[in-house]
Amino acid sequence: VNYAVIVAGGAGTRMAGAQLPKQFVEIAGKPVIVHTIEAFLSADPETEIIIPLPAQWLDHWQQIKGKYFPGKKILSANGGETRFHSVRNSLEFTMPLSIVAVHDAVRPVVSPDFIKATFSHAASYLTAIPALPVYDSLRNREHGKTVSVDRSQFFMIQTPQCFQQEILLKSYQQEFNPDFTDDASVVEAAGFELSFTEGNKFNIKITTNEDLRLAECLLKSD
Amino acid sequence: VNYAVIVAGGAGTRMAGAQLPKQFVEIAGKPVIVHTIEAFLSADPETEIIIPLPAQWLDHWQQIKGKYFPGKKILSANGGETRFHSVRNSLEFTMPLSIVAVHDAVRPVVSPDFIKATFSHAASYLTAIPALPVYDSLRNREHGKTVSVDRSQFFMIQTPQCFQQEILLKSYQQEFNPDFTDDASVVEAAGFELSFTEGNKFNIKITTNEDLRLAECLLKSD
Repeated sequence: VNYAVIVAGGAGTRMAGAQLPKQFVEIAGKPVIVHTIEAFLSADPETEIIIPLPAQWLDHWQQIKGKYFPGKKILSANGGETRFHSVRNSLEFTMPLSIVAVHDAVRPVVSPDFIKATFSHAASYLTAIPALPVYDSLRNREHGKTVSVDRSQFFMIQTPQCFQQEILLKSYQQEFNPDFTDDASVVEAAGFELSFTEGNKFNIKITTNEDLRLAECLLKSD
Repeated sequence: VNYAVIVAGGAGTRMAGAQLPKQFVEIAGKPVIVHTIEAFLSADPETEIIIPLPAQWLDHWQQIKGKYFPGKKILSANGGETRFHSVRNSLEFTMPLSIVAVHDAVRPVVSPDFIKATFSHAASYLTAIPALPVYDSLRNREHGKTVSVDRSQFFMIQTPQCFQQEILLKSYQQEFNPDFTDDASVVEAAGFELSFTEGNKFNIKITTNEDLRLAECLLKSD
Protein backbone atom coordinates (compact mmCIF):
# COMPACT_ATOMS: atom_id res chain seq x y z
CA VAL A 1 0.00 0.00 0.00
CA ASN A 2 1.16 3.54 -0.76
CA TYR A 3 0.55 6.77 1.11
CA ALA A 4 -0.39 10.31 0.23
CA VAL A 5 0.28 13.04 2.77
CA ILE A 6 -1.92 15.94 1.70
CA VAL A 7 -0.44 19.02 3.34
CA ALA A 8 -3.00 21.67 4.11
CA GLY A 9 -0.91 24.80 4.22
CA GLY A 10 -1.97 28.24 5.32
CA ALA A 11 -3.34 29.70 8.50
CA GLY A 12 -3.02 27.65 11.66
CA THR A 13 -5.28 30.12 13.45
CA ARG A 14 -9.03 30.23 13.22
CA MET A 15 -10.25 33.69 13.95
CA ALA A 16 -13.43 35.54 13.20
CA GLY A 17 -12.86 37.58 10.07
CA ALA A 18 -9.79 35.60 9.02
CA GLN A 19 -9.90 34.25 5.48
CA LEU A 20 -10.87 30.61 5.07
CA PRO A 21 -7.66 28.74 4.17
CA LYS A 22 -7.64 28.12 0.41
CA GLN A 23 -7.83 24.31 0.80
CA PHE A 24 -11.33 24.65 2.28
CA VAL A 25 -12.72 27.15 -0.23
CA GLU A 26 -15.34 25.62 -2.55
CA ILE A 27 -14.61 25.63 -6.27
CA ALA A 28 -16.55 23.74 -8.91
CA GLY A 29 -18.96 22.58 -6.19
CA LYS A 30 -16.54 21.11 -3.64
CA PRO A 31 -13.83 22.26 -1.23
CA VAL A 32 -10.39 22.41 -2.87
CA ILE A 33 -9.03 19.62 -0.64
CA VAL A 34 -11.84 17.27 -1.73
CA HIS A 35 -10.82 17.63 -5.39
CA THR A 36 -7.25 16.89 -4.35
CA ILE A 37 -8.08 13.77 -2.34
CA GLU A 38 -10.38 12.49 -5.09
CA ALA A 39 -7.53 12.71 -7.60
CA PHE A 40 -5.36 10.46 -5.40
CA LEU A 41 -8.15 7.96 -4.76
CA SER A 42 -8.96 7.94 -8.44
CA ALA A 43 -5.31 7.17 -9.27
CA ASP A 44 -5.44 4.26 -6.80
CA PRO A 45 -8.35 3.66 -4.39
CA GLU A 46 -6.00 1.73 -2.07
CA THR A 47 -3.78 4.76 -1.36
CA GLU A 48 -3.88 5.67 2.31
CA ILE A 49 -4.55 9.36 2.72
CA ILE A 50 -3.04 11.26 5.65
CA ILE A 51 -4.02 14.86 6.38
CA PRO A 52 -1.94 16.85 8.87
CA LEU A 53 -4.15 19.53 10.40
CA PRO A 54 -3.86 22.09 13.19
CA ALA A 55 -6.25 21.21 16.07
CA GLN A 56 -8.49 24.22 15.45
CA TRP A 57 -9.40 22.99 11.94
CA LEU A 58 -10.14 19.41 12.91
CA ASP A 59 -13.90 19.89 13.34
CA HIS A 60 -14.15 21.69 10.04
CA TRP A 61 -12.26 18.91 8.30
CA GLN A 62 -14.34 16.18 9.97
CA GLN A 63 -17.50 17.76 8.60
CA ILE A 64 -16.03 17.81 5.10
CA LYS A 65 -14.88 14.23 5.46
CA GLY A 66 -18.31 13.10 6.71
CA LYS A 67 -19.99 14.71 3.73
CA TYR A 68 -17.65 13.69 0.90
CA PHE A 69 -15.89 10.54 2.15
CA PRO A 70 -18.33 8.84 4.55
CA GLY A 71 -16.95 5.52 5.86
CA LYS A 72 -13.61 6.02 4.11
CA LYS A 73 -10.47 5.67 6.23
CA ILE A 74 -8.60 8.97 6.02
CA LEU A 75 -6.11 9.65 8.80
CA SER A 76 -5.63 13.03 10.45
CA ALA A 77 -2.17 13.81 11.81
CA ASN A 78 -1.20 16.67 14.07
CA GLY A 79 -0.39 19.76 12.09
CA GLY A 80 2.94 21.10 13.29
CA GLU A 81 4.38 24.56 13.54
CA THR A 82 5.67 24.42 9.96
CA ARG A 83 5.16 22.24 6.90
CA PHE A 84 8.25 20.26 7.95
CA HIS A 85 6.73 19.37 11.31
CA SER A 86 3.38 18.49 9.74
CA VAL A 87 4.98 16.07 7.30
CA ARG A 88 7.14 14.55 10.04
CA ASN A 89 4.08 13.92 12.20
CA SER A 90 2.29 12.36 9.25
CA LEU A 91 5.12 9.92 8.57
CA GLU A 92 4.39 8.17 11.89
CA PHE A 93 1.42 6.55 10.14
CA THR A 94 3.45 5.13 7.25
CA MET A 95 5.02 1.67 6.94
CA PRO A 96 8.26 0.59 5.20
CA LEU A 97 8.34 -0.91 1.70
CA SER A 98 5.93 1.69 0.41
CA ILE A 99 6.03 4.90 -1.58
CA VAL A 100 4.96 8.10 0.16
CA ALA A 101 3.67 11.03 -1.86
CA VAL A 102 3.64 14.47 -0.27
CA HIS A 103 1.28 16.83 -2.02
CA ASP A 104 -0.04 20.36 -1.46
CA ALA A 105 -3.75 20.32 -0.67
CA VAL A 106 -3.96 23.51 -2.73
CA ARG A 107 -3.04 21.73 -5.99
CA PRO A 108 -6.46 20.26 -6.76
CA VAL A 109 -6.08 20.07 -10.55
CA VAL A 110 -3.45 17.34 -10.29
CA SER A 111 -4.54 14.51 -12.59
CA PRO A 112 -4.78 10.82 -11.63
CA ASP A 113 -2.47 9.94 -14.55
CA PHE A 114 0.13 12.39 -13.34
CA ILE A 115 -0.09 10.96 -9.81
CA LYS A 116 0.32 7.41 -11.16
CA ALA A 117 3.34 8.43 -13.22
CA THR A 118 4.97 10.08 -10.21
CA PHE A 119 4.45 7.06 -7.92
CA SER A 120 5.74 4.82 -10.65
CA HIS A 121 8.87 6.92 -11.20
CA ALA A 122 9.64 6.75 -7.46
CA ALA A 123 9.12 2.98 -7.49
CA SER A 124 11.99 2.75 -10.02
CA TYR A 125 14.23 5.62 -8.94
CA LEU A 126 13.48 5.94 -5.18
CA THR A 127 12.37 9.57 -5.50
CA ALA A 128 10.25 11.53 -8.00
CA ILE A 129 10.32 15.33 -8.03
CA PRO A 130 8.14 17.00 -10.69
CA ALA A 131 9.97 19.92 -12.29
CA LEU A 132 8.97 22.38 -15.00
CA PRO A 133 11.11 24.80 -17.03
CA VAL A 134 10.66 28.52 -16.42
CA TYR A 135 8.95 30.08 -19.45
CA ASP A 136 8.93 33.75 -18.45
CA SER A 137 11.99 35.96 -18.19
CA LEU A 138 13.39 35.63 -14.70
CA ARG A 139 15.01 38.27 -12.50
CA ASN A 140 16.95 37.90 -9.28
CA ARG A 141 17.02 40.59 -6.59
CA GLU A 142 20.60 41.39 -5.62
CA HIS A 143 21.68 44.29 -3.41
CA GLY A 144 18.35 46.07 -3.76
CA LYS A 145 18.14 45.84 -7.53
CA THR A 146 17.13 43.06 -9.87
CA VAL A 147 19.21 41.41 -12.57
CA SER A 148 18.13 39.25 -15.46
CA VAL A 149 19.19 35.60 -15.05
CA ASP A 150 19.38 32.72 -17.52
CA ARG A 151 15.98 31.07 -17.06
CA SER A 152 17.10 27.90 -18.86
CA GLN A 153 19.09 27.04 -15.73
CA PHE A 154 16.04 27.24 -13.43
CA PHE A 155 13.18 24.85 -12.70
CA MET A 156 9.89 25.29 -10.90
CA ILE A 157 9.25 22.42 -8.52
CA GLN A 158 5.78 20.98 -7.98
CA THR A 159 4.13 18.28 -5.91
CA PRO A 160 3.33 15.40 -5.51
CA GLN A 161 6.90 14.57 -4.58
CA CYS A 162 7.17 10.81 -4.09
CA PHE A 163 9.75 8.92 -2.04
CA GLN A 164 10.58 5.46 -0.91
CA GLN A 165 9.24 5.53 2.67
CA GLU A 166 12.57 4.70 4.34
CA ILE A 167 14.34 7.59 2.59
CA LEU A 168 11.70 10.10 3.60
CA LEU A 169 11.53 8.85 7.18
CA LYS A 170 15.28 8.99 7.57
CA SER A 171 15.46 12.48 6.04
CA TYR A 172 12.86 13.76 8.46
CA GLN A 173 15.02 12.73 11.41
CA GLN A 174 17.13 15.81 10.66
CA GLU A 175 16.65 18.94 12.69
CA PHE A 176 14.41 21.56 11.15
CA ASN A 177 16.12 24.14 8.96
CA PRO A 178 14.20 27.17 7.65
CA ASP A 179 15.84 26.62 4.23
CA PHE A 180 13.67 23.51 3.76
CA THR A 181 11.13 24.70 1.20
CA ASP A 182 9.77 21.32 0.20
CA ASP A 183 10.40 17.62 0.78
CA ALA A 184 12.98 17.47 -2.00
CA SER A 185 15.16 19.94 -0.11
CA VAL A 186 14.81 17.92 3.13
CA VAL A 187 15.75 14.66 1.38
CA GLU A 188 18.64 16.28 -0.47
CA ALA A 189 20.01 17.80 2.75
CA ALA A 190 20.03 14.28 4.22
CA GLY A 191 22.43 13.26 1.46
CA PHE A 192 20.11 11.40 -0.92
CA GLU A 193 20.10 11.94 -4.70
CA LEU A 194 16.92 13.36 -6.20
CA SER A 195 15.35 12.02 -9.37
CA PHE A 196 13.36 14.56 -11.37
CA THR A 197 10.32 13.91 -13.52
CA GLU A 198 8.35 16.17 -15.83
CA GLY A 199 5.87 18.50 -14.11
CA ASN A 200 2.46 19.41 -15.45
CA LYS A 201 1.36 22.94 -16.20
CA PHE A 202 -2.23 22.34 -15.12
CA ASN A 203 -1.04 21.30 -11.68
CA ILE A 204 -1.22 24.85 -10.36
CA LYS A 205 -0.80 25.82 -6.73
CA ILE A 206 -3.60 27.96 -5.37
CA THR A 207 -2.19 30.87 -3.42
CA THR A 208 -4.28 33.82 -4.60
CA ASN A 209 -7.93 34.44 -5.49
CA GLU A 210 -6.83 34.57 -9.14
CA ASP A 211 -5.57 31.00 -8.77
CA LEU A 212 -8.93 29.90 -7.38
CA ARG A 213 -10.55 31.09 -10.61
CA LEU A 214 -7.87 29.45 -12.76
CA ALA A 215 -8.30 26.15 -10.92
CA GLU A 216 -12.09 26.29 -11.12
CA CYS A 217 -11.85 26.90 -14.84
CA LEU A 218 -9.60 23.86 -15.31
CA LEU A 219 -11.69 21.61 -13.06
CA LYS A 220 -14.88 22.52 -14.89
CA SER A 221 -13.38 21.96 -18.34
CA ASP A 222 -12.26 18.43 -17.55
CA VAL B 1 -1.02 58.28 -29.69
CA ASN B 2 0.55 55.19 -28.14
CA TYR B 3 1.89 52.07 -29.80
CA ALA B 4 1.70 48.35 -29.19
CA VAL B 5 4.29 46.13 -30.83
CA ILE B 6 2.77 42.65 -30.76
CA VAL B 7 5.67 40.27 -31.18
CA ALA B 8 4.72 37.05 -32.88
CA GLY B 9 7.36 34.64 -31.67
CA GLY B 10 7.99 31.14 -32.88
CA ALA B 11 8.94 29.60 -36.16
CA GLY B 12 10.17 31.90 -38.89
CA THR B 13 9.99 29.01 -41.32
CA ARG B 14 6.86 27.81 -43.01
CA MET B 15 7.22 24.21 -43.96
CA ALA B 16 4.75 21.49 -44.77
CA GLY B 17 4.22 19.45 -41.64
CA ALA B 18 5.61 22.14 -39.34
CA GLN B 19 3.36 23.14 -36.48
CA LEU B 20 1.33 26.30 -36.91
CA PRO B 21 2.97 28.95 -34.67
CA LYS B 22 0.92 29.29 -31.48
CA GLN B 23 -0.13 32.88 -32.22
CA PHE B 24 -2.15 31.66 -35.22
CA VAL B 25 -3.83 28.70 -33.53
CA GLU B 26 -7.57 29.23 -32.94
CA ILE B 27 -8.83 29.17 -29.38
CA ALA B 28 -12.28 30.23 -28.23
CA GLY B 29 -13.22 30.85 -31.85
CA LYS B 30 -10.37 33.12 -32.98
CA PRO B 31 -6.63 32.99 -33.61
CA VAL B 32 -4.60 33.71 -30.48
CA ILE B 33 -3.17 36.92 -31.96
CA VAL B 34 -6.67 38.27 -32.61
CA HIS B 35 -7.56 37.97 -28.91
CA THR B 36 -4.33 39.78 -28.09
CA ILE B 37 -4.89 42.67 -30.51
CA GLU B 38 -8.51 43.02 -29.39
CA ALA B 39 -7.37 43.44 -25.77
CA PHE B 40 -5.13 46.37 -26.78
CA LEU B 41 -7.81 48.00 -28.93
CA SER B 42 -10.31 47.54 -26.15
CA ALA B 43 -7.94 49.25 -23.69
CA ASP B 44 -7.66 52.17 -26.15
CA PRO B 45 -9.02 52.08 -29.72
CA GLU B 46 -6.47 54.75 -30.72
CA THR B 47 -3.45 52.56 -29.98
CA GLU B 48 -1.44 51.94 -33.13
CA ILE B 49 -0.75 48.24 -33.50
CA ILE B 50 2.50 47.08 -35.12
CA ILE B 51 3.07 43.41 -35.94
CA PRO B 52 6.58 42.28 -36.88
CA LEU B 53 6.31 39.20 -39.06
CA PRO B 54 8.65 37.04 -41.12
CA ALA B 55 7.89 37.39 -44.83
CA GLN B 56 6.63 33.84 -45.20
CA TRP B 57 3.78 34.48 -42.73
CA LEU B 58 2.62 37.76 -44.23
CA ASP B 59 -0.11 36.25 -46.43
CA HIS B 60 -1.45 34.23 -43.56
CA TRP B 61 -1.56 37.30 -41.34
CA GLN B 62 -3.20 39.43 -44.06
CA GLN B 63 -6.01 36.90 -44.29
CA ILE B 64 -6.55 37.05 -40.54
CA LYS B 65 -6.43 40.82 -40.58
CA GLY B 66 -8.94 41.00 -43.44
CA LYS B 67 -11.34 38.76 -41.57
CA TYR B 68 -11.13 40.22 -38.06
CA PHE B 69 -9.96 43.80 -38.54
CA PRO B 70 -11.25 44.90 -41.98
CA GLY B 71 -10.41 48.54 -42.70
CA LYS B 72 -8.41 48.92 -39.47
CA LYS B 73 -4.87 50.32 -39.78
CA ILE B 74 -2.52 47.69 -38.39
CA LEU B 75 1.10 47.95 -39.49
CA SER B 76 3.27 44.98 -40.41
CA ALA B 77 7.00 45.32 -39.79
CA ASN B 78 9.75 43.04 -41.02
CA GLY B 79 10.28 40.18 -38.65
CA GLY B 80 13.99 39.94 -37.92
CA GLU B 81 16.31 37.10 -37.15
CA THR B 82 15.52 37.34 -33.43
CA ARG B 83 12.96 39.04 -31.20
CA PHE B 84 15.45 41.90 -30.75
CA HIS B 85 15.61 42.56 -34.48
CA SER B 86 11.85 42.32 -34.87
CA VAL B 87 11.26 44.92 -32.16
CA ARG B 88 13.96 47.17 -33.58
CA ASN B 89 12.35 47.05 -37.03
CA SER B 90 8.96 47.83 -35.48
CA LEU B 91 10.25 50.92 -33.71
CA GLU B 92 10.80 52.61 -37.08
CA PHE B 93 7.05 53.17 -37.18
CA THR B 94 6.86 54.91 -33.79
CA MET B 95 7.01 58.63 -33.03
CA PRO B 96 8.49 60.49 -30.03
CA LEU B 97 6.38 61.70 -27.09
CA SER B 98 4.51 58.43 -26.94
CA ILE B 99 4.51 55.24 -24.90
CA VAL B 100 5.41 52.01 -26.68
CA ALA B 101 4.18 48.67 -25.31
CA VAL B 102 5.94 45.52 -26.42
CA HIS B 103 3.80 42.44 -25.89
CA ASP B 104 4.01 38.75 -26.72
CA ALA B 105 1.34 37.78 -29.25
CA VAL B 106 1.05 34.51 -27.32
CA ARG B 107 -0.32 36.24 -24.19
CA PRO B 108 -3.92 36.60 -25.35
CA VAL B 109 -5.55 36.61 -21.89
CA VAL B 110 -4.05 40.00 -21.04
CA SER B 111 -6.90 42.22 -19.83
CA PRO B 112 -7.65 45.75 -21.09
CA ASP B 113 -7.46 47.03 -17.48
CA PHE B 114 -4.04 45.52 -17.03
CA ILE B 115 -2.88 47.09 -20.32
CA LYS B 116 -4.21 50.49 -19.25
CA ALA B 117 -2.47 50.24 -15.87
CA THR B 118 0.82 49.35 -17.53
CA PHE B 119 0.69 52.25 -20.02
CA SER B 120 -0.26 54.57 -17.21
CA HIS B 121 2.64 53.41 -15.00
CA ALA B 122 5.08 54.08 -17.86
CA ALA B 123 3.56 57.54 -18.41
CA SER B 124 4.59 58.39 -14.82
CA TYR B 125 7.79 56.38 -14.41
CA LEU B 126 9.12 56.13 -18.02
CA THR B 127 9.09 52.31 -17.98
CA ALA B 128 6.66 49.65 -16.70
CA ILE B 129 7.78 46.04 -16.33
CA PRO B 130 5.15 43.63 -14.97
CA ALA B 131 6.67 41.23 -12.44
CA LEU B 132 5.20 38.39 -10.39
CA PRO B 133 6.64 36.54 -7.39
CA VAL B 134 7.62 32.90 -7.84
CA TYR B 135 5.16 30.67 -5.96
CA ASP B 136 6.68 27.25 -6.53
CA SER B 137 9.94 26.03 -5.06
CA LEU B 138 12.75 27.01 -7.40
CA ARG B 139 15.92 25.12 -8.31
CA ASN B 140 18.99 26.29 -10.14
CA ARG B 141 21.16 23.96 -12.22
CA GLU B 142 24.82 24.29 -11.25
CA HIS B 143 27.63 22.03 -12.42
CA GLY B 144 25.24 19.34 -13.62
CA LYS B 145 23.12 19.21 -10.48
CA THR B 146 20.34 21.38 -9.16
CA VAL B 147 20.23 23.33 -5.92
CA SER B 148 17.29 24.85 -4.12
CA VAL B 149 17.32 28.66 -4.22
CA ASP B 150 15.42 31.28 -2.23
CA ARG B 151 12.40 31.91 -4.43
CA SER B 152 11.52 35.12 -2.58
CA GLN B 153 14.45 36.76 -4.37
CA PHE B 154 13.16 35.89 -7.85
CA PHE B 155 10.52 37.40 -10.08
CA MET B 156 8.83 36.19 -13.25
CA ILE B 157 8.68 38.93 -15.85
CA GLN B 158 5.69 39.35 -18.16
CA THR B 159 4.60 41.60 -20.97
CA PRO B 160 3.33 44.17 -21.96
CA GLN B 161 6.49 46.04 -21.09
CA CYS B 162 5.90 49.74 -21.68
CA PHE B 163 8.47 52.43 -22.33
CA GLN B 164 8.74 56.06 -23.17
CA GLN B 165 9.44 55.88 -26.93
CA GLU B 166 12.78 57.74 -26.79
CA ILE B 167 14.16 55.37 -24.16
CA LEU B 168 13.21 52.28 -26.12
CA LEU B 169 14.50 53.68 -29.41
CA LYS B 170 17.82 54.66 -27.87
CA SER B 171 18.18 51.26 -26.17
CA TYR B 172 17.62 49.47 -29.46
CA GLN B 173 20.57 51.29 -31.02
CA GLN B 174 22.80 48.91 -29.08
CA GLU B 175 24.32 45.92 -30.79
CA PHE B 176 22.45 42.67 -30.38
CA ASN B 177 23.50 40.55 -27.40
CA PRO B 178 22.15 37.01 -26.98
CA ASP B 179 21.62 37.76 -23.25
CA PHE B 180 18.73 40.06 -24.18
CA THR B 181 15.70 38.00 -23.13
CA ASP B 182 13.15 40.78 -23.21
CA ASP B 183 12.89 44.54 -23.72
CA ALA B 184 13.58 45.23 -20.05
CA SER B 185 17.00 43.63 -20.39
CA VAL B 186 17.75 45.68 -23.52
CA VAL B 187 16.73 48.92 -21.82
CA GLU B 188 18.64 48.09 -18.66
CA ALA B 189 21.79 47.27 -20.64
CA ALA B 190 21.55 50.74 -22.19
CA GLY B 191 21.85 52.20 -18.69
CA PHE B 192 18.23 53.12 -17.96
CA GLU B 193 16.50 52.33 -14.66
CA LEU B 194 13.54 49.97 -14.82
CA SER B 195 10.30 50.55 -12.96
CA PHE B 196 8.39 47.41 -12.00
CA THR B 197 4.66 46.98 -11.69
CA GLU B 198 2.53 44.09 -10.48
CA GLY B 199 2.03 41.28 -13.00
CA ASN B 200 -1.19 39.34 -13.46
CA LYS B 201 -1.47 35.58 -13.06
CA PHE B 202 -4.04 35.21 -15.83
CA ASN B 203 -1.65 36.80 -18.30
CA ILE B 204 -0.12 33.46 -19.24
CA LYS B 205 2.29 32.92 -22.10
CA ILE B 206 1.30 30.18 -24.50
CA THR B 207 4.25 27.95 -25.25
CA THR B 208 2.78 24.44 -25.03
CA ASN B 209 -0.46 22.74 -26.02
CA GLU B 210 -1.36 22.66 -22.32
CA ASP B 211 -1.15 26.45 -22.29
CA LEU B 212 -3.52 26.64 -25.26
CA ARG B 213 -6.12 24.80 -23.18
CA LEU B 214 -5.47 26.98 -20.13
CA ALA B 215 -5.84 30.14 -22.18
CA GLU B 216 -8.99 28.91 -23.89
CA CYS B 217 -10.49 28.12 -20.50
CA LEU B 218 -9.74 31.62 -19.23
CA LEU B 219 -10.97 33.36 -22.39
CA LYS B 220 -14.25 31.44 -22.31
CA SER B 221 -14.88 32.12 -18.63
CA ASP B 222 -14.55 35.88 -19.02
